[in-house]
Amino acid sequence: MHLSWRTLCTLTFLVPTLCVGMPSTTLCVDDSDDVRGTGDLGVVVERATGSVLIVETTTHTRLAKIQGLGDLSHASVVYSRDQRYAYIFGRDGGLTKLDMLCGEIVKRIMQAGNSVGGAISQDGRLVAVSNYTPGGVKVFDAATLELLADIPAEFGNNQRSKVIGLVDAPGQRFVFSLFDAGEIWVADMHTPSSPKIIKFKEIGRQPYDALISPDGRYYIAGLFGEDGLVRLDLWNADVQRILPNYGKGDIKKPVYKMPHLEGWAMASDYAFVPAIGQYAVLVVDSRTWQPVKHIPVQGQPVFVMA
Amino acid sequence: MHLSWRTLCTLTFLVPTLCVGMPSTTLCVDDSDDVRGTGDLGVVVERATGSVLIVETTTHTRLAKIQGLGDLSHASVVYSRDQRYAYIFGRDGGLTKLDMLCGEIVKRIMQAGNSVGGAISQDGRLVAVSNYTPGGVKVFDAATLELLADIPAEFGNNQRSKVIGLVDAPGQRFVFSLFDAGEIWVADMHTPSSPKIIKFKEIGRQPYDALISPDGRYYIAGLFGEDGLVRLDLWNADVQRILPNYGKGDIKKPVYKMPHLEGWAMASDYAFVPAIGQYAVLVVDSRTWQPVKHIPVQGQPVFVMA
Repeated sequence: MHLSWRTLCTLTFLVPTLCVGMPSTTLCVDDSDDVRGTGDLGVVVERATGSVLIVETTTHTRLAKIQGLGDLSHASVVYSRDQRYAYIFGRDGGLTKLDMLCGEIVKRIMQAGNSVGGAISQDGRLVAVSNYTPGGVKVFDAATLELLADIPAEFGNNQRSKVIGLVDAPGQRFVFSLFDAGEIWVADMHTPSSPKIIKFKEIGRQPYDALISPDGRYYIAGLFGEDGLVRLDLWNADVQRILPNYGKGDIKKPVYKMPHLEGWAMASDYAFVPAIGQYAVLVVDSRTWQPVKHIPVQGQPVFVMA
Repeated sequence: MHLSWRTLCTLTFLVPTLCVGMPSTTLCVDDSDDVRGTGDLGVVVERATGSVLIVETTTHTRLAKIQGLGDLSHASVVYSRDQRYAYIFGRDGGLTKLDMLCGEIVKRIMQAGNSVGGAISQDGRLVAVSNYTPGGVKVFDAATLELLADIPAEFGNNQRSKVIGLVDAPGQRFVFSLFDAGEIWVADMHTPSSPKIIKFKEIGRQPYDALISPDGRYYIAGLFGEDGLVRLDLWNADVQRILPNYGKGDIKKPVYKMPHLEGWAMASDYAFVPAIGQYAVLVVDSRTWQPVKHIPVQGQPVFVMA
């Protein structure tokens, strides 16, 4: 959902020289620079140039620069569970599987015309992308990027909705919101070719972004068309409106950049939330979802990070 | 602190054939089985045979078996931040650095005569071991296993205490307890060769194991010599006794195996704690550290895992 900078794994500039199969050799030069773990690697998205850097966070160096990833103006990244591969979701519908160890693109497909964000399933086998055009979710095999499921976001009278706020949830599920329909859908992907979808309708007007709580219980979507947020309790299939005055202030300022919900910080029992249209960070008690404090800042916050 | 089974990273049985420096080659066979990420590898301690298995958790296979690690009857493991190496602490004072990617021992030293547990520093550069004989903590360079600091656990009239409950804490610190002295020490390792040590004395009789809370704030030690536990608030350098009736019951049973504090489960605001000398799991509110429930079980619990 956001321009990503995450630390996961590494390589040296020599790494590409290493990724060679040597089936008949049993020698292991364990102090070689050529072999490395992937726990300290990370990807930096270079938005303006459509490229990414692979970095390592042990000695903080750049290992490789990969070009040709298309429009990364609203790119995001998820990682394989073995921490070797990064899946990069471009704004132009491009989906790129990057081998961080070998420093190269494994596969790249154009899977839609306009896309924002993606997710990887709990077991690491499925990669899902949320699309604006055509509105819906596509689910791919994480190994091959083969299309396994196409979930058009249909509503009303044969309309298609933009999809936002796609997250992975426990139980091999994806959860996402339909901006134009005002719906939240939960897709059970145990049989990838035939997702079981539960639809929650009339959850609020124009959900524009969402997050899932660290324990996997709550899916929370921000509403662009009204004040407040909507919270889906995935344990009890229960929808509640929360923070009805989120973003309300005495003076409402124009919003130039929508805050990102995945940019919330959680610390102890508190969530620190960018307040829409205000020069403020909202502090919310995450047990009751009641606001407890406004922290004034110099501009409109977009991310709040711990 | 406990017999370890953690999932971190992987290899195939062919992996040892791969770990070969190839400085003059630039080919990268990205679909080769020979090159792999380390995010899904794990180590299984084979206690009775002094060996360990390297496993991968994606397809759940055994990748390698490493022998000759000495007495693993109370072994524990920590991992390097790049998730390539495992440091295995043996009961006999052995410290083994294992290359999980190449499936081989990098270095093995005997650093004490009787040892239980170890930790790795926040930046991954220091490995510390807590020793019974001679009582104290030794700190090693994580890369070379060179001894950097020897911290004898001296107290009273030239006595040496067994050391238990060694953990790493934020701010490049190690925290540990002196069983015989009834003290908790906090060692700031910013200058590894000259640790700055703060000693908390008279914290309770015979601390026997400890844990650190996930947020790095509280260090909690169990007391063998009295009922209850002691909690050190690392933010405020404040020591408080908690759960004064921990382990007390109407019928006190003989304790055959001490419960491990690192085997606590934390879920939402509750900690699930094995009750000493009882057939029960104690549920504690982690905000107030007051017990809220006893869950009867069929024997004396040792670990409670989420």
